Amino acid sequence: MKIIQADPTGFCFGVKRAIDKLEEALKKYGTVYAMGSPIHNPQEISRLEGLGLVVVESFSDIPNDSLVFLRAHGVNPATYEYLTGNNCTIIDGTCPFVANAQEKARSLSEEGYAVVIIGDHDHPEIRAIRGFVDGECHVIPSETDVFMFYGKEKIGVVSQTTQDENVFAETVGTLVRCVKEVKVYNTICKATVERQNAIRKLAKDVDAIIVIGGRNSANTSRLVDIAVSRGVRTLWVEHAEEIDPAWLESVETIGIAAGASTPDWLINEVQILLGNLQVVKGDGKL
Amino acid sequence: MKIIQADPTGFCFGVKRAIDKLEEALKKYGTVYAMGSPIHNPQEISRLEGLGLVVVESFSDIPNDSLVFLRAHGVNPATYEYLTGNNCTIIDGTCPFVANAQEKARSLSEEGYAVVIIGDHDHPEIRAIRGFVDGECHVIPSETDVFMFYGKEKIGVVSQTTQDENVFAETVGTLVRCVKEVKVYNTICKATVERQNAIRKLAKDVDAIIVIGGRNSANTSRLVDIAVSRGVRTLWVEHAEEIDPAWLESVETIGIAAGASTPDWLINEVQILLGNLQVVKGDGKL
Repeated sequence: MKIIQADPTGFCFGVKRAIDKLEEALKKYGTVYAMGSPIHNPQEISRLEGLGLVVVESFSDIPNDSLVFLRAHGVNPATYEYLTGNNCTIIDGTCPFVANAQEKARSLSEEGYAVVIIGDHDHPEIRAIRGFVDGECHVIPSETDVFMFYGKEKIGVVSQTTQDENVFAETVGTLVRCVKEVKVYNTICKATVERQNAIRKLAKDVDAIIVIGGRNSANTSRLVDIAVSRGVRTLWVEHAEEIDPAWLESVETIGIAAGASTPDWLINEVQILLGNLQVVKGDGKL
Repeated sequence: MKIIQADPTGFCFGVKRAIDKLEEALKKYGTVYAMGSPIHNPQEISRLEGLGLVVVESFSDIPNDSLVFLRAHGVNPATYEYLTGNNCTIIDGTCPFVANAQEKARSLSEEGYAVVIIGDHDHPEIRAIRGFVDGECHVIPSETDVFMFYGKEKIGVVSQTTQDENVFAETVGTLVRCVKEVKVYNTICKATVERQNAIRKLAKDVDAIIVIGGRNSANTSRLVDIAVSRGVRTLWVEHAEEIDPAWLESVETIGIAAGASTPDWLINEVQILLGNLQVVKGDGKL
């Protein structure tokens, strides 16, 4: 069995930057609060909780004067004001690409456009971006819902930073059929595009793909969608223990890919497991 | 043989408006100059020349103090100034939808966008629109050439008014993959969309289609492309005399469609010819 890893894969610049900031603060101050998981990866969160991270479900659970970490997905302006108003100190891990999408949504809104965000309605990144729009704002996952905008005068578009570029392009293509004026900011981050292109390339060269990433990770979910849509047998795991060796029976070439929020140590565990299976099978092709 | 005519088909609002203006002026004043064919239909031009129309190949062939008709495709601002500077009186047949595309190209250019016109490089409408752009301007026929814009910061898009909506949507979809900020005005006119949808619908119900329109008519050419791409046997004629009855052998249901610059009398001639063939064949199904 030959093992090929998608290149690039795993942690992106924005997540790495955020987690480095968080880890530095934890080591320096001991206790840091975060609203929701700082990244969509349960295994990494357990590790950070061991260092002093406190994950809460509501900002009202954060005491005044605390250290508060804002994850890569960002928060809306009202939340930011609430926290600073309570004298909290902010460790801002907002990904610069997400901050750009927020800023573009705000400027479109100020220019009088009804804002359309192409993404997942309830994803934290999208909930934050919506807070930057003062006026009409819609979130649509794909072109399916575009026809509701038929006849509108002015639509401004931004994208979830982890959106599939094909979905984004198709949705904009359909939008410009229905609306006279459409101003589009492609806010998909380069790391996302690179990882999606890498799994498309990988899909051509392997019999099966294992995608490693949190079940609640949007960008991992999109990698899985791409692999499945390419007709490749695909397994989505959060960690190596979920891999059943029987699933790999008759696989000659296996591909590995990981979401932008999947840390290297989880990828390494999968590499090691597959390597061990290799030794057991003894075909020496690794 | 059953005959079905696309609905709507033939003269659009803009062409009808222009030709009405021209005809009124010809009847009132006798001689009117026009640069190039007022509409892309040789048969209609012959009829108008009989009323006093003088078609010239260059504006320098138009004497000072003349009456000058501007066709539905419009002219660029420099030409307009040249004519009024020579004390000519303008009969402006510029289609309001074309004037809108010109105005949008101008405003995109003023806002600092590199302007991309999705259309035919040498079509008179496009040559006129280009004159409204002060700065970078590109004309592309389809998405094939989009990748030359990779990495550009700001692109503004307008469309030839007779562009195929599918081509327009696909091209914009590809553009937003390559360029961070894209502002799009869909300047395709409603009459064009209606006529294109009508021939798509017609293609489902007939064995063959006759498209009537000038060989130099872009919108007629697009109707032909759509019919052919739907796998329907298609014949493009300028007038009824070009129809060989042998071509209709074994056709049970024939469709008729006409470009936006094809006058009713040319469509009627085809209807009459097909009706006569009907009588000769005597199958009584008309």
